[in-house]
Amino acid sequence: MIKVGIVGGTGYTGVELLRLLAQHPEVEVEAITSRSEAGMRVCDMYPNLRGHYDDLAFSEPDPQRLGACDAVFFATPHGVAHALAGELLAQGTRVIDLSADFRLRDAEVWSEWYGQPHGAPELLDEAVYGLPEMHRERIRQARLIAVPGCYPTAVQLGLLPLLEAGLIDADHIIADCKSGVTGAGRGAKVPSLLAEASESMKAYGASGHRHLPEIRQGLGDAADRPVGLTFVPHLTPMIRGIHATLYGRLTTEPGDLQALFEQRFADESFVDVMPSGSHPETRSVKGANVCRLAVHRPAGSDTVVVLSVIDNLVKGASGQAVQNLNLMFGFTEDAGLAAPALMP
Amino acid sequence: MIKVGIVGGTGYTGVELLRLLAQHPEVEVEAITSRSEAGMRVCDMYPNLRGHYDDLAFSEPDPQRLGACDAVFFATPHGVAHALAGELLAQGTRVIDLSADFRLRDAEVWSEWYGQPHGAPELLDEAVYGLPEMHRERIRQARLIAVPGCYPTAVQLGLLPLLEAGLIDADHIIADCKSGVTGAGRGAKVPSLLAEASESMKAYGASGHRHLPEIRQGLGDAADRPVGLTFVPHLTPMIRGIHATLYGRLTTEPGDLQALFEQRFADESFVDVMPSGSHPETRSVKGANVCRLAVHRPAGSDTVVVLSVIDNLVKGASGQAVQNLNLMFGFTEDAGLAAPALMP
Amino acid sequence: MIKVGIVGGTGYTGVELLRLLAQHPEVEVEAITSRSEAGMRVCDMYPNLRGHYDDLAFSEPDPQRLGACDAVFFATPHGVAHALAGELLAQGTRVIDLSADFRLRDAEVWSEWYGQPHGAPELLDEAVYGLPEMHRERIRQARLIAVPGCYPTAVQLGLLPLLEAGLIDADHIIADCKSGVTGAGRGAKVPSLLAEASESMKAYGASGHRHLPEIRQGLGDAADRPVGLTFVPHLTPMIRGIHATLYGRLTTEPGDLQALFEQRFADESFVDVMPSGSHPETRSVKGANVCRLAVHRPAGSDTVVVLSVIDNLVKGASGQAVQNLNLMFGFTEDAGLAAPALMP
Amino acid sequence: MIKVGIVGGTGYTGVELLRLLAQHPEVEVEAITSRSEAGMRVCDMYPNLRGHYDDLAFSEPDPQRLGACDAVFFATPHGVAHALAGELLAQGTRVIDLSADFRLRDAEVWSEWYGQPHGAPELLDEAVYGLPEMHRERIRQARLIAVPGCYPTAVQLGLLPLLEAGLIDADHIIADCKSGVTGAGRGAKVPSLLAEASESMKAYGASGHRHLPEIRQGLGDAADRPVGLTFVPHLTPMIRGIHATLYGRLTTEPGDLQALFEQRFADESFVDVMPSGSHPETRSVKGANVCRLAVHRPAGSDTVVVLSVIDNLVKGASGQAVQNLNLMFGFTEDAGLAAPALMP
Repeated sequence: MIKVGIVGGTGYTGVELLRLLAQHPEVEVEAITSRSEAGMRVCDMYPNLRGHYDDLAFSEPDPQRLGACDAVFFATPHGVAHALAGELLAQGTRVIDLSADFRLRDAEVWSEWYGQPHGAPELLDEAVYGLPEMHRERIRQARLIAVPGCYPTAVQLGLLPLLEAGLIDADHIIADCKSGVTGAGRGAKVPSLLAEASESMKAYGASGHRHLPEIRQGLGDAADRPVGLTFVPHLTPMIRGIHATLYGRLTTEPGDLQALFEQRFADESFVDVMPSGSHPETRSVKGANVCRLAVHRPAGSDTVVVLSVIDNLVKGASGQAVQNLNLMFGFTEDAGLAAPALMP
Repeated sequence: MIKVGIVGGTGYTGVELLRLLAQHPEVEVEAITSRSEAGMRVCDMYPNLRGHYDDLAFSEPDPQRLGACDAVFFATPHGVAHALAGELLAQGTRVIDLSADFRLRDAEVWSEWYGQPHGAPELLDEAVYGLPEMHRERIRQARLIAVPGCYPTAVQLGLLPLLEAGLIDADHIIADCKSGVTGAGRGAKVPSLLAEASESMKAYGASGHRHLPEIRQGLGDAADRPVGLTFVPHLTPMIRGIHATLYGRLTTEPGDLQALFEQRFADESFVDVMPSGSHPETRSVKGANVCRLAVHRPAGSDTVVVLSVIDNLVKGASGQAVQNLNLMFGFTEDAGLAAPALMP
Repeated sequence: MIKVGIVGGTGYTGVELLRLLAQHPEVEVEAITSRSEAGMRVCDMYPNLRGHYDDLAFSEPDPQRLGACDAVFFATPHGVAHALAGELLAQGTRVIDLSADFRLRDAEVWSEWYGQPHGAPELLDEAVYGLPEMHRERIRQARLIAVPGCYPTAVQLGLLPLLEAGLIDADHIIADCKSGVTGAGRGAKVPSLLAEASESMKAYGASGHRHLPEIRQGLGDAADRPVGLTFVPHLTPMIRGIHATLYGRLTTEPGDLQALFEQRFADESFVDVMPSGSHPETRSVKGANVCRLAVHRPAGSDTVVVLSVIDNLVKGASGQAVQNLNLMFGFTEDAGLAAPALMP
Repeated sequence: MIKVGIVGGTGYTGVELLRLLAQHPEVEVEAITSRSEAGMRVCDMYPNLRGHYDDLAFSEPDPQRLGACDAVFFATPHGVAHALAGELLAQGTRVIDLSADFRLRDAEVWSEWYGQPHGAPELLDEAVYGLPEMHRERIRQARLIAVPGCYPTAVQLGLLPLLEAGLIDADHIIADCKSGVTGAGRGAKVPSLLAEASESMKAYGASGHRHLPEIRQGLGDAADRPVGLTFVPHLTPMIRGIHATLYGRLTTEPGDLQALFEQRFADESFVDVMPSGSHPETRSVKGANVCRLAVHRPAGSDTVVVLSVIDNLVKGASGQAVQNLNLMFGFTEDAGLAAPALMP
């Protein structure tokens, strides 16, 4: 058993870590921090955890107590991991950051999109982008993981095969993404009210969203050249789930696209290439650490369409974080992540 | 007061016609037909109509009784209007067909997509495609109207300004569309159950959907040349609403896109160009005969993004049908259509 | 045309007043106030109103401008109408208060439940409880109306026939009520988020809720004696609607309950007694100023069950307020209130 | 490892059994039957099971193959278990029936409510009602289990303490119950469509529902006398969950109700008595085999209110079935049932 800490545990990715770790055979949660809720038992905020963590309470963040953990998850707004990660790493604690703090390799690009200076540029070199389907071996050796964002996970997994094979015009990729409302976090904001967000659909950030540079960086790695991407996220009236619909223009006759996708992910236990002709539903991954993909080529068209679904809180955040932990500590990759999705 | 009939009144577009016509000062509903429910009062099936149509019952379709109406709406599956429209026109009754029967000018293309011979090719010449923002003057004179489909309405209104101005690559247009479940009709099908369709998002028909040729025809008219279109519809967990997200690659520096859109629709009372930077929500048109649009150009990109929302049952079907009726009979264009959307 | 003002227009009852008054032939909205949003156009906050009130903006509350109106609606938290109503009445303006300020005849009871002194006890004598089905004649003469709460409307209408006829044990009435989330207002609170409130059901205030004394007062009027009531409200994952399920133990053989209900409401255009055996759905009144009722007597039981549904924002608030206005100014009672519910 | 079969696996309780058993360390699913879908892989119908049961396909029911299992679950409409249970028991296979076939001890009462003769009255004597909180010891020895219905589970667990202690008037109990739509099954029926059932609330069966005699029987056992019950179920726009609101009139001063409930369930790992003043949410048990309870006594009232929530598909069906299996085979009672609820 290893000991882990969670910094910033009151949000949705924090409680989701607790839910997943409750089923993990090798992990014990030693501390979970929250300045605003210090002293409150986690199961008083999240009654689904009653009977699972009855003695665990939120505590003030204490670098020494956290430093005594084998690993610490950051489930915090951006900027927090910048401030604490170095101190933890110095104590030998591995850091798995679910925030955006270490996702972009270029501190200046980060600073542009997040409107503040990068707080720990000296750590960028050793931070590993925690998408196991791209960087599994580096993750095994890493001390500091930047867990990919939810949209970036869905988009990259869907486009990797096409870009790696050089089949599509990398200058004009379109990612039309639909997310459930937990993507907007647990903040009390009017637009996230049930009375405002249900029975409706809308785009947001159509002119530019923070996940754009992250996706571009990852797709650029896959293509081995800079890519041009139009990314439009949408708010969908559901709790969990991301559906990414990806459009690329073929620059060459691609051969058997279904086979290409199946081969690319043949050894990946958390990427499921559905049968030809499928339309994956987000509910088929609800609560599960899975990305399901389907690839379509409409008749008479040179545009390929990829459908990619994940649970934004699992493969798009906390589940992927646990998957990274498993790789870093040599556990079986699906420890704590084996349960099927909840459907219906 | 004119007298109207409705053929096939048990579906969602049928009851929506009744709801709208209840507020119409110039129209009386003389007959509503349904083979399966003949004899049942409409308000026993649709209790929202109690107090409005207490004496109106579904009846067997009777060409003579329908032929005594000034106008007849078809709210039927495809094929039905083919069989009856000619007979009604011969009696001097105008026909407003909400089905797909007369939307495609080419009977062979229709036959390909609908899997059966076209049943009334001799009427195609005089059928007018009922999109007032394109064909208002022809509608005023028409005897036979093909009311546009829901997706086609949202997509065409969003792309008209760009195509008419020749600003985008007409060979590679992308329409990513999201629809509420009433778009699938009132049929009892497992995938439309609340337990199956809520808390989920999925694409369907990614390899080809019947609205594709209709949209292509309309966009081709606007562009004055054939267009290439990738159209992917998605099922969204809400009752009403379509959100079309439209992507076009600019082939020339476009000037002020906001002004272009505002000018194109300056005289249109049912198309609302939102302020620059807006993201229209489908709920803002719930129950109302309005299309709200916003146009975005992401920084550093040559792709323009148009957001277009309608209520699929109103501007996407029954409301547009009433708008056509108003034009055909010289009523004010918003008669029966003046109520604001229901929000929240 | 009369001129009306709305105080506190940013909440759901405020925008709902605007939606309904947009269809009212005799009313012009002169002013709508909001301290927090002064200067903002109403259609920028509520885009469903674009095209309807394009020049109307929220303004600071100005007693003189409001006093120049024929009538002023208060769509405010409790306490606000206390402070302003007297001044408006003195200027000859009639006041229709949608808040709880004048619903309880006893200032001390009010003070107990609302945790502050009653701010205008001198006005209580002339305040009329605006339930037209109980007090129509007094409403016609009133200068100050206390519009009933949403739960109280649904519960009272469902129980009036039984209590007036003295058929049930008035000491042990049970009202199990389910409300959509707009009942909790437009405040940004975590429990009202879509991610928290959807896909779930819960009771609240089971040990005591502010609508309890109001309901008891109204039922006591109907029974002509004090009543004992257990009232448990529940939060339901929908935007609009209240479903009240009412249980009374028969103290005598009641005869034909269906006929009793039909006769009681025979002249009421906004109360719809459904056929025997019906189960009214809240969606059948969505957006409409109607209460639909059904009365059941389970086999072998001495308990009568009444099902009562309203739209909490319409018959439970803004629609009932307009109905009161119509009575006070001699308009037809359904002016602005004639549209059928939106279904589906 | 034991081998189990599932008869009638295409419905929601069937797939839920598969989801739970995928996490069960002692159970292997040997066969799952469906006449209509024989030959189809379960993961083609339920893609959440992809990667879990990739080789399992629905098969025609074969009594020999089923008889080779250690236990067989019936997830079937009523009547099916009547026909097959005896044959399986004769082969030494234990039967766990999720349908209503063996819930009522009196074959005549069963016949009255289900409109057909009881098909296996000779088995009624040995059938054990599978509510572990009432009958744990008998379940351990049983060969044939009647798994309680969903409403009966929620209602009985909430009322047991009060009835066993003789504190409330057993002649006038009220159970107002709200259920998600999976309670209506996976049948393709118009009223269960998302477009019909969402954004709405309604009662059904207000004059009599098949769960009534089952609840009365169970409550009668607890009270040791016949009880009088008014039971009104409601359809709620959510996928899973039952919220039972239970009303009983105190016949004596009850002492500390909170302590009474806590003591009654002190040893029950699947019944969670929440802290005093709580209002349990159905989402807090989504996917989990838990019943959460709260007990309230409104001020100044002699009526006690119990709030009881379960997931209708888990503690209300398939989870409870697995709990019974665990007891029958001597596994730990929470084997396969230990995961926390999915929240949000």
